Amino acid sequence: MVNTDNIIALATASGVGAIAVIRISGKNAINIVAPFFKSAKNKDLKKQKSHTLHLGHIIDHNRVIDEVLVSVFKGPNSYTGENTIEISCHGSPYIQQEIIQLFLRNGCRMANAGEFTLRAFLNGKIDLSQAEAVADLIASDNEASHKLAVQQMRGGFSNEIKKLREELLNFASLIELELDFAEEEVEFADRQQFKDLLNRIEMVLKRLIDSFAVGNVIKNGIPVAIVGEPNVGKSTLLNALLNEERAIVSDIAGTTRDTIEDEISIGGIGFRFIDTAGIRETKDVVESIGIKKTFEKIDLAQVIIFLLDATEIQNSEFRIQNLKNEIEKIKNKYPQKPLIIVANKVDILTEESIKKLNVALSGIKGVVLQLLSAKTGQGVDELQKNLLNFVNTGALRNNETIVTNTRHYDALLKALEEIEKVKNGLNSGLSGDLLAIDIRQALYHFGEITGQVSSDDLLGNIFANFCIGK
Amino acid sequence: MVNTDNIIALATASGVGAIAVIRISGKNAINIVAPFFKSAKNKDLKKQKSHTLHLGHIIDHNRVIDEVLVSVFKGPNSYTGENTIEISCHGSPYIQQEIIQLFLRNGCRMANAGEFTLRAFLNGKIDLSQAEAVADLIASDNEASHKLAVQQMRGGFSNEIKKLREELLNFASLIELELDFAEEEVEFADRQQFKDLLNRIEMVLKRLIDSFAVGNVIKNGIPVAIVGEPNVGKSTLLNALLNEERAIVSDIAGTTRDTIEDEISIGGIGFRFIDTAGIRETKDVVESIGIKKTFEKIDLAQVIIFLLDATEIQNSEFRIQNLKNEIEKIKNKYPQKPLIIVANKVDILTEESIKKLNVALSGIKGVVLQLLSAKTGQGVDELQKNLLNFVNTGALRNNETIVTNTRHYDALLKALEEIEKVKNGLNSGLSGDLLAIDIRQALYHFGEITGQVSSDDLLGNIFANFCIGK
Repeated sequence: MVNTDNIIALATASGVGAIAVIRISGKNAINIVAPFFKSAKNKDLKKQKSHTLHLGHIIDHNRVIDEVLVSVFKGPNSYTGENTIEISCHGSPYIQQEIIQLFLRNGCRMANAGEFTLRAFLNGKIDLSQAEAVADLIASDNEASHKLAVQQMRGGFSNEIKKLREELLNFASLIELELDFAEEEVEFADRQQFKDLLNRIEMVLKRLIDSFAVGNVIKNGIPVAIVGEPNVGKSTLLNALLNEERAIVSDIAGTTRDTIEDEISIGGIGFRFIDTAGIRETKDVVESIGIKKTFEKIDLAQVIIFLLDATEIQNSEFRIQNLKNEIEKIKNKYPQKPLIIVANKVDILTEESIKKLNVALSGIKGVVLQLLSAKTGQGVDELQKNLLNFVNTGALRNNETIVTNTRHYDALLKALEEIEKVKNGLNSGLSGDLLAIDIRQALYHFGEITGQVSSDDLLGNIFANFCIGK
Repeated sequence: MVNTDNIIALATASGVGAIAVIRISGKNAINIVAPFFKSAKNKDLKKQKSHTLHLGHIIDHNRVIDEVLVSVFKGPNSYTGENTIEISCHGSPYIQQEIIQLFLRNGCRMANAGEFTLRAFLNGKIDLSQAEAVADLIASDNEASHKLAVQQMRGGFSNEIKKLREELLNFASLIELELDFAEEEVEFADRQQFKDLLNRIEMVLKRLIDSFAVGNVIKNGIPVAIVGEPNVGKSTLLNALLNEERAIVSDIAGTTRDTIEDEISIGGIGFRFIDTAGIRETKDVVESIGIKKTFEKIDLAQVIIFLLDATEIQNSEFRIQNLKNEIEKIKNKYPQKPLIIVANKVDILTEESIKKLNVALSGIKGVVLQLLSAKTGQGVDELQKNLLNFVNTGALRNNETIVTNTRHYDALLKALEEIEKVKNGLNSGLSGDLLAIDIRQALYHFGEITGQVSSDDLLGNIFANFCIGK
């Protein structure tokens, strides 16, 4: 199953940088690079120790491609567990391509997505859930998702699963041993101890399964629908919420603006803001379609912000009444979803109007009115706190293990199902051979998480989601 | 002048990659990183040899930020000549920021653009023209500009200048020595040998100055205006010209599409295609503005391609006559600029129409008609050859030194001016003390190129054009 060919890929982000790193892994990685590397000190790359760096030029038939730094890693002491070379070259896309193509012509092939990490797994350097954490880590863009990924990469989650699996495996062996001595009716496995173990496993599984809701939110961000017309100050609101974290977010946004430009990290948690057009009362067909779309988007959100421009309601009974109707309509349709009414520009609102607004909204149950001034900063802290209140971050704060991966979640659900069967079987005096089958099934699902049980299909699916070069 | 503080920056391209590299340089670089690096093998970073790699975690007060590989370089054996640490971390922008901010809080400051290379220069690791070549190398996006940058980075250009400067310096000393013995009327400097040297220097300077035209073209690409209406098949033409080099170009384009999407490398030379709308006869005011813009764009180009869809002129005397008028108008306005008439889709054109087209164009002097079929590939090779013919690549082929840098060009022009003065002075029997002044001036301009003479302002200007992290 382990590949022995040599793979190459750009490991750093594409585009122009000061430097770029090209990674080559495989049995012959060092031998492939050596003939094209002219060391500044006339060193033979093949004779260098692992974990050393060498300055020189990459030269193809007298044509100097670049001055580079070459890192030598000798298997098994490398990321992949194989011989690995990392070439740190100047960061021009042209040079990156020239170097990669040179080695494609000389014994390497392009690495598939995630193939370096796949090899690390296949060579026993990391288990499967750690490999998956690597992809999560690279994708992490806020403190909470980063913390979870680091925790998982360091084996926190899989260690817990492995330990339970070993204990269960131990009992499974004893019970299967009993089968060999069936005629003698001995009990190698202490039934009470076994029940205790099953209860313990059940508890852990349930906790992990429950943590998925939190984990999922942390990993993917909390979807927040903003209901409000385009000119109502949506970007002002987002900017106000950004505060001091703006620098980081704008940095990220600059690189992948399409996908995450409305994602903001508040208190280390990611919030995804979904823009909607609002649901103003209408008989117009086109606008009706707009309202339908607004509701579709609210369906996807966990929290709703109804954004209104306070100046609009200034001294207007009519507008306030209209707003009240709209808000009631949303609340009736989504009674369970938290709904925050954010009134912006309250710094220029009269006491009178604020009072009227309060009165109008007091009739609707389960809404929070948040007076805000993006200009003076009034109410911004409170709004951030309100948003964070909707996230159960207790588990995160207490350093508990949190499941973020759908695949793990599925395996845990299946394992729990089997554990329940074993428990019921044990209570109803099921015969040892039937018990053993269910235990094996539970063990299988545990093994799926850490990769002690895996199939090519499964691996293919997992690593296809990686970026190339990792 | 040499800074002793510690600078940090992301060295790889921004955005998400498998890994990213953060570079720290300065007297305390190793000491700054050591307390936050927990080696996997419990090694003390401060005790490690230069050019070694170490696996471990970056940890800030028990908070694990990432698993990283740390490279140790001890000055003067580093790029900057100072102690340098490179941290290879996972490629999430969030992690990059966390690590950079950790060390900004602990003794580093953000590096300015080009500051690592500036330090390399100030510490005598490279001369100024080599430092400039680093920036050119990173920006290079085709074979020719890459080759020039590598050549310059390896010192080809500055070595030539340095050698002439030394010889000239030698004579300058002898002539200044004569001044000390003025009463004795000795001639330490052999006047004939000196004249020979001046002639040699003059020849080299002229060659280098002439090479700038080629160098500039190679560095910046050759601007080609395409005159033709939008639907006339411009993108088909570009795709046909791309041929097998498409992969590289599209790869690069994917990262910086805005600026270079119409830049193509043909035979290793970059061509920049400038789209224009055409100059069809009109009385419409709006269209007149369009024609004015077309001419403005042609002004910027070195070569003009007039692109026409052959099917349009099929059996149409009138269209052919119209075309002829338009082409004549362009040729009259730009008699010196090469003009290639490219007729696309000739595979479906009748013999008759081709003949008529030939006849119509034969009346206009100095245009090249290129029949082309992007579909069958007919004429593509010839068009590429035609374009390359407009570039004087002889110097490039013969591995001659080519000047690409405007600053060098200016210094060379000034040096030549001073050398001419010295020559004239020598011929007209100018006194030694006056000669010496002009020689010193010439030496100064030579020194400007290699950085043997430099000012803070000059250095600031040069390195401000670098990317941060280099």
